[in-house]
Amino acid sequence: MPDPTATQALGRFVAGSDWRDIPAALRHEAKRSILNHVGCALGTARDPAVQAALRVMRGLGGAPAATVFGQGARLDPMGAAFVNAVASNLLDYDDTHLDTVIHPAAPVAPPLFALAEQRGLPGAAVLHAFLLGGEVACRIGNAVSPGHYARGWHITSTCGAFGAAAGCAGLLGLSAEQVAHAIGIASSEAAGTVENLPNAAKNVSVGNAARHGILAAMFAAEGYDAAPAAIEGPLGWARAAGDAADVAAITEGLGTRWEIGRNTYKPYPAGIVFHAVIDACLELRARLDAPPEAIAAVTVAGDALLLARGDRAVRNARDSRVSIHHSAALGLLRGRAGVADFEQPAVDDPALAGFRAKVTAALDAALPRGAARVTVRLANGREEETTVLTPRGSEARPLTDAELEAKYHENAALGGCADRAAAQIAAIWGLEEAADLGHLTALLA
Amino acid sequence: MPDPTATQALGRFVAGSDWRDIPAALRHEAKRSILNHVGCALGTARDPAVQAALRVMRGLGGAPAATVFGQGARLDPMGAAFVNAVASNLLDYDDTHLDTVIHPAAPVAPPLFALAEQRGLPGAAVLHAFLLGGEVACRIGNAVSPGHYARGWHITSTCGAFGAAAGCAGLLGLSAEQVAHAIGIASSEAAGTVENLPNAAKNVSVGNAARHGILAAMFAAEGYDAAPAAIEGPLGWARAAGDAADVAAITEGLGTRWEIGRNTYKPYPAGIVFHAVIDACLELRARLDAPPEAIAAVTVAGDALLLARGDRAVRNARDSRVSIHHSAALGLLRGRAGVADFEQPAVDDPALAGFRAKVTAALDAALPRGAARVTVRLANGREEETTVLTPRGSEARPLTDAELEAKYHENAALGGCADRAAAQIAAIWGLEEAADLGHLTALLA
Repeated sequence: MPDPTATQALGRFVAGSDWRDIPAALRHEAKRSILNHVGCALGTARDPAVQAALRVMRGLGGAPAATVFGQGARLDPMGAAFVNAVASNLLDYDDTHLDTVIHPAAPVAPPLFALAEQRGLPGAAVLHAFLLGGEVACRIGNAVSPGHYARGWHITSTCGAFGAAAGCAGLLGLSAEQVAHAIGIASSEAAGTVENLPNAAKNVSVGNAARHGILAAMFAAEGYDAAPAAIEGPLGWARAAGDAADVAAITEGLGTRWEIGRNTYKPYPAGIVFHAVIDACLELRARLDAPPEAIAAVTVAGDALLLARGDRAVRNARDSRVSIHHSAALGLLRGRAGVADFEQPAVDDPALAGFRAKVTAALDAALPRGAARVTVRLANGREEETTVLTPRGSEARPLTDAELEAKYHENAALGGCADRAAAQIAAIWGLEEAADLGHLTALLA
Repeated sequence: MPDPTATQALGRFVAGSDWRDIPAALRHEAKRSILNHVGCALGTARDPAVQAALRVMRGLGGAPAATVFGQGARLDPMGAAFVNAVASNLLDYDDTHLDTVIHPAAPVAPPLFALAEQRGLPGAAVLHAFLLGGEVACRIGNAVSPGHYARGWHITSTCGAFGAAAGCAGLLGLSAEQVAHAIGIASSEAAGTVENLPNAAKNVSVGNAARHGILAAMFAAEGYDAAPAAIEGPLGWARAAGDAADVAAITEGLGTRWEIGRNTYKPYPAGIVFHAVIDACLELRARLDAPPEAIAAVTVAGDALLLARGDRAVRNARDSRVSIHHSAALGLLRGRAGVADFEQPAVDDPALAGFRAKVTAALDAALPRGAARVTVRLANGREEETTVLTPRGSEARPLTDAELEAKYHENAALGGCADRAAAQIAAIWGLEEAADLGHLTALLA
């Protein structure tokens, strides 16, 4: 028997996986991913971009069968999957598989929620399909990284389509062959460019990744097939969309070593390389115990990537999320870095603007990627310094369950459903035992 | 003022175009394209792949607002656009922009029909938007050819998404800026690989191109934006999906030289390079005026591409459509090459199989691409030879309106609506004067 192709191997993996064999820690990680995902979607529920997506999908939609989080609206499954994916990823405040920079939950979880709600499937099936779909997305992402993203492909949108297809096919109980075809069909659906990341077009590709998962699984269920080597073939997706794919990375240790178990969650809605800056400044703020006016100057040292991305003037919210100066000012002046701290009022706040002017960025090529050293000099000459190598939320320092809950509460308040947050959180922790999603989706409606 | 980007230039072109300025010959070409397109869609109306697509879209769909050709069914606009696109392109019997090998009508026309039917827009608006959308698809295709297809991208699906977006945005009367954003959004939707061409996954990418046009236009209408240089930017679509794009080809002569005016229509549902073989054999059959048994041997000479693609054993319908031997046998033995002549019963026909064995393929590197020389030797020693340099249906020998009508009748009969074909044809020729699509879509339901 010839070796299976990549899609065939993934098809067998998904169709052959048994929830009872999944380690308890990984099951818990699935719940953490879902908790973080749902909270992020609630946090942007009132954003104009999310409201526009809701209007478009409502105009196109069929029978209302699936809940749009925080909207009091139900759409057909593909419409709900689209809007929930857009909302969850809108601020890039969601989750990250750090090796690939894929945000796995936004494309993978929403189509599963939508299909499971429509069909009355149990919570454990959703958690299981999320792990399988997330695993497929991250493994295909590993195979094409870093060339794929460097070439201009928004990897969350492209690899997300594979993960969504695999997850949906698994949730629907398709055969190994059909799952392989669903993943292969996704190879003809995967799209989205890095050039569009600063624009709303990015949201369309993230939403489409979620929709395409449903479409690919439904077509595979109807007997549509895909090329056996849809991913690694000479005219297949990996070559078309990248330079050289490490196809073995897709299957090596499959089912034993879980990439989705390495999912991380952002404590701050800022670019991931700024998290060490914020952490260092929060620590110094506590240590200094001095009024901000006492601070004369701040120096933030980091590697070339941090400086290239973050040493910039801050004119709008988008700038603020990738600014060394704004990140440092928030940590030292406000002592927090939540969603509202990166919005236009914060950008325009004279106190923050004045403090940003005290911050200098400095290259220290010896610092590893993602690390930062912050030095604060007080007006009286005192100096304090701290270095953060592994920021909060990184793989080395994962957010605790309590921290994830606090993030959820912040998001729920932004979305206008603070009063239900505790019940929603409890329902998500209890998903594994839920016979269907009815209780949770009622709380999220 | 800086030079406009590619999407901005195309946005101004689409939004600024006036139907009254379109030359009469081009208006007529639009009707020819639509006639050919609708006929091809009717021809496959009963195909299992089309029926499966109809089931999937019905399961997802909203209010029935747009007609699926030949199905007695209406779907929401995106669903109808998907199924009509799949049907029209299913056998690659549709139209071809030869420089890019784009089949323009399948992705571009269906979303226009669906939106126009839903909104009661006039026939002239559909014809106009088709020309604009087709033009955008072919020009972007020119810019990335031949590297894009060679890299593995199914250009009808990828560039079709741009054309569909531009056409829909034009049909909806969006501003130049919004049309540019719709085209830019399409750059984050364009997908589909060559590896999947022999499989049903190909149909999904063609159908998605049509759907995505509607989605891109609706999001642009809602204020979603895209990167200014979504196509030619350093991390934009052209670089991501190709090696070196000739961006100037997108705008050079825009509105003066029309690429969509060079659309061609296939007289035979076979690979385009086999058309010269069929033409030559039909001509020899008439000239010989001898029973097929009298033919002892046939030699088909062509360039390396013809031999590489067509010198093969014929086991199934797919093989037959790219077979020198089957093409020659049909021309000489049956004297025709219609849809049924490339289906499994024809493959299995002992007379055809026996005749295929008499055919030899021979390289003649001096022959230009797309040409064929056929030599027939009779049992009595007589030899006849003919060379076809420009087959019927090519740009040099376009199908006449009467030939397009005959092709339509063949397809309508296959789709089970032969009795309505004449009325449908008359309605398509009269589209320019139609206040809405109601009369035509009623005939096509």
